[in-house]
Amino acid sequence: MAGGRGERFWPLSTSAHPKQFLALFGGKTLISQAVDRLDGLIAPERILVITSRDLVAATHTAAPSLPMQNIIGEPMGRDTAAACALACGLVGRRDPDGIASILTADHLMADVAGFRRTLADCITVAQARDSILTIGIQPTEPSTGFGYIEMAEKLETATATPFHRAVRFVEKPDLATATRYLADGKHSWNAGMFIWRCSVMRHALEQFTPNLHAFCRAVETAEPSMLNALLDKTYPEIQRISVDFAIMEHAKNIVVARGDFGWDDVGTWEAISHHIQADEHNNVVVGACEAVDSSDNVVVSQGRLTAVLGLKNVVVVQADGVTLVCARDRVQDLKKLVQRVATRPGGGKHV
Amino acid sequence: MAGGRGERFWPLSTSAHPKQFLALFGGKTLISQAVDRLDGLIAPERILVITSRDLVAATHTAAPSLPMQNIIGEPMGRDTAAACALACGLVGRRDPDGIASILTADHLMADVAGFRRTLADCITVAQARDSILTIGIQPTEPSTGFGYIEMAEKLETATATPFHRAVRFVEKPDLATATRYLADGKHSWNAGMFIWRCSVMRHALEQFTPNLHAFCRAVETAEPSMLNALLDKTYPEIQRISVDFAIMEHAKNIVVARGDFGWDDVGTWEAISHHIQADEHNNVVVGACEAVDSSDNVVVSQGRLTAVLGLKNVVVVQADGVTLVCARDRVQDLKKLVQRVATRPGGGKHV
Repeated sequence: MAGGRGERFWPLSTSAHPKQFLALFGGKTLISQAVDRLDGLIAPERILVITSRDLVAATHTAAPSLPMQNIIGEPMGRDTAAACALACGLVGRRDPDGIASILTADHLMADVAGFRRTLADCITVAQARDSILTIGIQPTEPSTGFGYIEMAEKLETATATPFHRAVRFVEKPDLATATRYLADGKHSWNAGMFIWRCSVMRHALEQFTPNLHAFCRAVETAEPSMLNALLDKTYPEIQRISVDFAIMEHAKNIVVARGDFGWDDVGTWEAISHHIQADEHNNVVVGACEAVDSSDNVVVSQGRLTAVLGLKNVVVVQADGVTLVCARDRVQDLKKLVQRVATRPGGGKHV
Repeated sequence: MAGGRGERFWPLSTSAHPKQFLALFGGKTLISQAVDRLDGLIAPERILVITSRDLVAATHTAAPSLPMQNIIGEPMGRDTAAACALACGLVGRRDPDGIASILTADHLMADVAGFRRTLADCITVAQARDSILTIGIQPTEPSTGFGYIEMAEKLETATATPFHRAVRFVEKPDLATATRYLADGKHSWNAGMFIWRCSVMRHALEQFTPNLHAFCRAVETAEPSMLNALLDKTYPEIQRISVDFAIMEHAKNIVVARGDFGWDDVGTWEAISHHIQADEHNNVVVGACEAVDSSDNVVVSQGRLTAVLGLKNVVVVQADGVTLVCARDRVQDLKKLVQRVATRPGGGKHV
């Protein structure tokens, strides 16, 4: 899944250049890292990318190892349930009970080998069980920025990765609840990654979202050359809902693979400070910056010089045509600002 | 006098585009406003501009009413004493006892008519007395950003402007001292404007700075076509000193014309907030800015969009190739930052 509207890393990311195309970490775009992580585990011709129609060409450029026809452009964003149904149909027409691993294109994983072991174990278990597998991340802090999955007993598997029965999916909690979740050892972060056989997936769609089941079946049987036409016809009518709401909060056969491989969805400008070494004044700097008497800032300066004086706890981002200056504790409200910019006369070109 | 290194309004001002060329106020550059203020009072052919050699063409563009040969380019900056000696020589060779009004090119005066009345009265008094006249501004707040002039008894003149004998020039005071100065009514701000007959000026130069006196005499007698060559030869040897230090702190014949015409030297980014109407959240904005939950900022955005979120008491300035972000209470230290930028590899192009 490689969608996104580019709001959270605005103005460096935009709707035409969303987060998966950013190369802030390790010199490679996030989507290119996501594809590289699968090297030797899933062959390129079996890696499908679901993105928006107008990002197909850029996606191909960022992930040139993938066959062009494996990059599927949605005519409009319809959230993750639709993308999962589309994936189920695309995998199912190649192999009616193939395993679909729904992965994310814009997350960071510090321990790639750990991720690969977890995913490989998920594929093994998905083969053997009629379960919806999800990778749940072992929390390292009481984060209020992620959803959680409550886990029950550990299952008997032959894998190194521990698998637990899932009890329920919970929305982003408050700090007290998150602290309790961290302490009780029974909760994982919901990383939005799902591994399931097509038959299991189809059954869940049929049970909880009949419309998406019909859509999945239509994708399965469509002529490849007619796929875009099918999407154009069906997408406007598809409801906009996440797979968590549509399926995961209802299904009883969910199993959590407990993962611990330095996962982060890097959801805000604040989050990049966890992945880029700060200078001696705790300024996280990408690009050209001159800082005097300044500390605890995040400065991302693309193509231009950023100069800061007496500044503390501020995020400054320069990108093409725009500079953002934001209090560090307000980055989660960036969407509000981006929407205001979009409604300015001529503001559309900036978002 | 139209010199300047462009540090205080960096990055909008630079050494190639110093403060007098900024058009932040009233849509006209400060130097153009300075020339316009003299309209009908001093004929254009009697207005001389002393600037740096490489700003002569830009000065002519900004003040096209002045004859080109009236714009004198110093080969290097040598502070205000040298500029005054040069002015004395340039005026003296037209009229050996002409009156030279040394005025500033980059200050604002809200009440232009008031300034003109004060200057006209100074010219009248300079004609009649062997005094160095300076315009001292009636303080409106206990500013620690200006030098002060202590005044003694009022002199008998036929002018509306009150003239006082000057007791001494004092450097920028601390707040307690400035508060006392404001209360005692005996102190004026030193606005750096001097009106004196050439004979008075020459006498002061001879008495306190014999080298500058010799330089002034050389300018007086030089062939016009040889002026630049003379400056090139003499400037490197001229000491770098302000007219305040060189003359005003020693001369006994100084008279203060008390002025009250909304004068401001607009010495920092902070100062522009006194001259530009703030929005309803007390943000002073020039150019394109989208602000969410932000107050008490100064945003100057040239050619690009500046977007701010949750920001308070910050100065943000976008100019060609550079963005400055500065705590509002640190603008007086901008010079330090500019000097750091100048020493960066490739930083010279930004200052």
